[in-house]
Order: sequence, then C-alpha cells, then structure tokens
Amino acid sequence: MIFVSDADVRRYVPFEEVLRGVERAFIALHTGASTVFEVVRGRGGGDDHFFAIKSARDGSIPLLGLKAGSYAPSNRTRGLPAHSSTTLLIDDLTGLPIALVEANYLNALRTSAADALAVRALARTDATTLSIIGIGAQAVFEALAVQHVRPIRRILAVSRSEERRRPFMEALRERSDISVEFTDAESAARRADILVTVTPSQTPLVHADWIRPGTHISAMGADDMGKQELDVELIARASLWVDHPEQAVRIGEAQHAFRSGRITLEQLHGCTLGHLLAQPDCYNRSSEDITVFDSSGIAIQDIAAAYVAQRCVVAGRARSEA
Amino acid sequence: MIFVSDADVRRYVPFEEVLRGVERAFIALHTGASTVFEVVRGRGGGDDHFFAIKSARDGSIPLLGLKAGSYAPSNRTRGLPAHSSTTLLIDDLTGLPIALVEANYLNALRTSAADALAVRALARTDATTLSIIGIGAQAVFEALAVQHVRPIRRILAVSRSEERRRPFMEALRERSDISVEFTDAESAARRADILVTVTPSQTPLVHADWIRPGTHISAMGADDMGKQELDVELIARASLWVDHPEQAVRIGEAQHAFRSGRITLEQLHGCTLGHLLAQPDCYNRSSEDITVFDSSGIAIQDIAAAYVAQRCVVAGRARSEA
Repeated sequence: MIFVSDADVRRYVPFEEVLRGVERAFIALHTGASTVFEVVRGRGGGDDHFFAIKSARDGSIPLLGLKAGSYAPSNRTRGLPAHSSTTLLIDDLTGLPIALVEANYLNALRTSAADALAVRALARTDATTLSIIGIGAQAVFEALAVQHVRPIRRILAVSRSEERRRPFMEALRERSDISVEFTDAESAARRADILVTVTPSQTPLVHADWIRPGTHISAMGADDMGKQELDVELIARASLWVDHPEQAVRIGEAQHAFRSGRITLEQLHGCTLGHLLAQPDCYNRSSEDITVFDSSGIAIQDIAAAYVAQRCVVAGRARSEA
Repeated sequence: MIFVSDADVRRYVPFEEVLRGVERAFIALHTGASTVFEVVRGRGGGDDHFFAIKSARDGSIPLLGLKAGSYAPSNRTRGLPAHSSTTLLIDDLTGLPIALVEANYLNALRTSAADALAVRALARTDATTLSIIGIGAQAVFEALAVQHVRPIRRILAVSRSEERRRPFMEALRERSDISVEFTDAESAARRADILVTVTPSQTPLVHADWIRPGTHISAMGADDMGKQELDVELIARASLWVDHPEQAVRIGEAQHAFRSGRITLEQLHGCTLGHLLAQPDCYNRSSEDITVFDSSGIAIQDIAAAYVAQRCVVAGRARSEA
C-alpha cells in the first residue's frame, strides 16, 4: 500500500503524464474495456457539505478505484479548501488495495486534462483568444491546459468577485506570460475563440447569441443536479460532446437540454470524448461549427490520474533516494 | 491522515470496544442520526471478483465513511484471502480524510459484533448449545462473539469440507476451551439453542421443521442477491429482525420471503436491531418464540468499527512509545 500526498503530486507528476493517462482512459471507456459505476451522493454535517463517491473499473490498466470527494464551501472560513478528494486504487484481480492518493491537486490536473483533450480534438488550430468565466482555484489549471494544446495569446477573464482577480493573475503569471484582461461575460463570450466556463452556477451565464461561429466551449462546471452554465439554446445549436452520456444528462451541462427534450441520450452515445479520441475522423468539423464539451467528471479520470501519480511518485522517490 | 493496518487492529483493538461502537451506531441509525447511502456493486477482473462500496454518514460520532470490499475466491489459489476490505473515514464537517483502515480483521469483528448484539437482545439467557453452519474464516469470530454474551458449553459445527475442520478447531482452541462436535445440518439445527449460519450458500440449508421453539438464529451469510441460508417458511414463522430493512429485502436473507410476499418492508421497519437496542422493551419474547436476525452488513458498522480502531490504535501506539 502506497500513500501519495498532494505534495508528492506537485513535485513528481507532470501534467503531460496525466494528459496521456486520461486520454488512454477515455479511449478504454469508448472501446468497452472500462466500466463506470453508479455515483453515490450524500450530505455531510453542516449545511453546505456535499459528499460524492465516484468509482469505476479501468480495464486498460487494469484497476478498480474510487474517489471520495467533498465540497464544503464554508471550509474557506476555516482556512481550508472547499473541495477535497481522496482516491483509492484497488487491484483488479485480487481486490487488494494498492494506493491511497490525496487527490486535491491531482483532481485539478485530471479535470483540466479532459479539457485539454477536448480542446485539442475540437477547437480550431488557430485559436488564440481564450475566455474564462469563473476564476476560482480550477480556472488557472484550465488556462494552462488550453495553452498546452493551442497557441493562446490573450486571456479574457470574467469574475463577479474583485478579490479573486489578484490570486488568479498571480497564479497564472507564475507559469505563463500571457496577459489577462478582465471583462464581462458577454464581451468575453463574443470575442472568444475558446470559451471555458468553470463555475458552480445554477443559472445560464452564456447565451447562444453571444457565440461566434467556429468557437469551442468547454463547460467544466456542471457536476450536479441543477447546475448550469450555458443556455439550452446554445447546447441545442452546438455540436455537443460529453464525457459520459448517462452521467451528462443527469448531472452535467446536458441535463437541461435533455430534460426539455432538445437532445436525446441516443444522440449522445455517438458523441463522447472517448469516441473522438479513439476515432478522430468520426467528426468532420466545419470552420463555422460551434462545439461544446460537457465535462461532468468521471471516475475513470480519477483512476487514470491516480495510477499515473502513483507511478511517477514511486519513480521520483527512487530517483531522489539514489 | 492516519493509516491503521490489520496488524494494528489485532494488537490494539479489543472486541468489547468494537461491540460498544457498533451498538452505538445501530442506535444512531434507529434514532435517525445516521444515514446509509446506496451500495455500489461492480465486477473486477477475473471471473469471480465482486466489488462493493458501502458508505454512510454516522451522525453520532460524527463521521462520513466508506468501505471498499472485494470478494475474489480464486485468491485462495494465490495464497491470499478471498475477502479484502479497506475503510476510509472522512471528517463530517470539512470533508477532509481522517484515517485509512485496513479492515480485513476488523470486518470480522464488526460482523460478529452485530451477531453478539442480536444474540444478547434476542436469545434465551440460558442458551448453552451453539450450532454453527459453515466454518470458514468468519465462523470462529461468530463462535467467540456468541460466547461473549451467552454461557455456551457446547458447539455443534457443520461443514461440507473435511479440510476446514482442523483450522477451525485450532483457531477456536486458541481462545476458548469449549469442545466442538461435527455433525450434519439437521442434527445441529434440531439441537441448537442458538444457530448461526455463516456461508455463501444460494440454497436453503436450514428447514423450518428442524427448529425447536425458543431457538435464536443469526443468519450472517446473505449479503448479495441470490444468497440464502434459511427456507422461506422459517423466515415467515419467526420473529424476524434486520440490520437495515431496505438492504435486507434486496440482498439479505429476507430477500426471498419478501419477493414471495411472505413479509413486507413496512413490517421490517419496526423490526431493526437498532430499535431493539434503543428500546429493549419494544419486543416481549415468549419462551417459545423462534427469533431470526438477518445480517446483511451495513456501512455504519464499518464506520463505527474503523473509528473505534483508529482511537484504540492511536492510544495503543502512544502507550507503546511511552
């Protein structure tokens, strides 16, 4: 049994490795090698503590695994992060536990890795303007992930909170020299080549009419019933891609268009990120298409990222000791 | 984050402490302080690897927690145990992980603790003959748990496997001086004051007509769809008590009588172990009653046992270091 801490992940795990692991995991899900189990949701103590367990079997490694994740926004008043995640990896054949991975930093990497994979597969190759709505802790990872796969030269950022601007800019400046301009949602959406939404919003922040032809949108925020970042009209007009159809229509951005009958589950079965990665020519993008990636976040990402982390950390520790 | 190993549990955790923790947990479930979440079930690699995640919030500690458990019988050919369990405890307020507990030995304690609580509440106080059907690894714990609460003088044991007899007797002899007689299921059932079934059977092993008035039965084996140790007639005739009504009628011994309409979910809501422990006079046993406890195994037992283990191990380590 190996224990991997957040500090280990920061020190030893490159984003590129997580990206490759998550790509392999999405392809394995598409080919049927992997299975995502039901998500368990519950409440903790306090008014605002939501708890979820996401689990899966990744037949391509192979491993079983689960991530226990909590969201307790009042943690901020305690000087603690609102999100906390822990991933347990289990041997696929024997059922014995293999590794426990503190997955706070890693969760940010695995989420932004899915974004990078979707942007790489869907966004125009000449995309230079990235707009980001929501500048919480995850936004910096999204900005870096998009830069990893597209030649971004300008970032337009949107936040209702003045006090978050400085931490966002400082975190970004540490690892990127791209300038940031703060603006409103409409202006950011209208000027975007790539638009990333990364908020806990429960009402649409982006309207269909704001989006130029050829724009790619990654909707990263919706991961629970009631959450919504894009209006239904935008989802219905766009070429929509999801991480997991059943989960997307239940807790992802797609839930609203699905419930109002604008999209069907059958239609989404052909439109998964795994399909796009396994068979890139399954989609012929026209330069006018608006594409949307709906990331609800699935357990195979967690397992793949934790497996990569465990391997990188074991190798890194061995090098440190040598 | 504290890591507790099986060896720690064996060294530092007395059965009596687990018994008290599990009792408190059942009472908290009855009073509504605790919530059991949905069980996740999946398959691992290999033909025979079944995987389950049981999770709950125990509002009486308070803690969130989950147990990942595997059953892979072909492990025996690898020199590994068929069952393996790992429990993660999570802070109820902040969502931060608190302890990871290797729960193989502990699982045996928490399961037999529920049996002891049921026997203490339901069996005649003068019960001296204990019959056990099934003598796998769990059976020794059940024998010791029943002896903990009743003046057992004789054990009748039933096993189809000759080769398991010696390990069972040796394990029992280490901690008890009660003699064991091997016999067949009918003879053991007919002579029992207390009968414990602890098998993975999928067909009834015990028939209603074999059971004398006044006998208590703990059906410990059924914890999945299709498992069955007692015939439906016996369940229908007895005073039936369960750990968790919804889970009992889905995966417990009660599933068969429920599906054939002999018992209802409503009837079980009044007949929980928690109710019996919180309000002992909710049931007035006549000396002729046949009582049955259906243990399907619930997450609050795992959380309570892991919490007890964590406290005992931290205290034990501190004493060792002093």
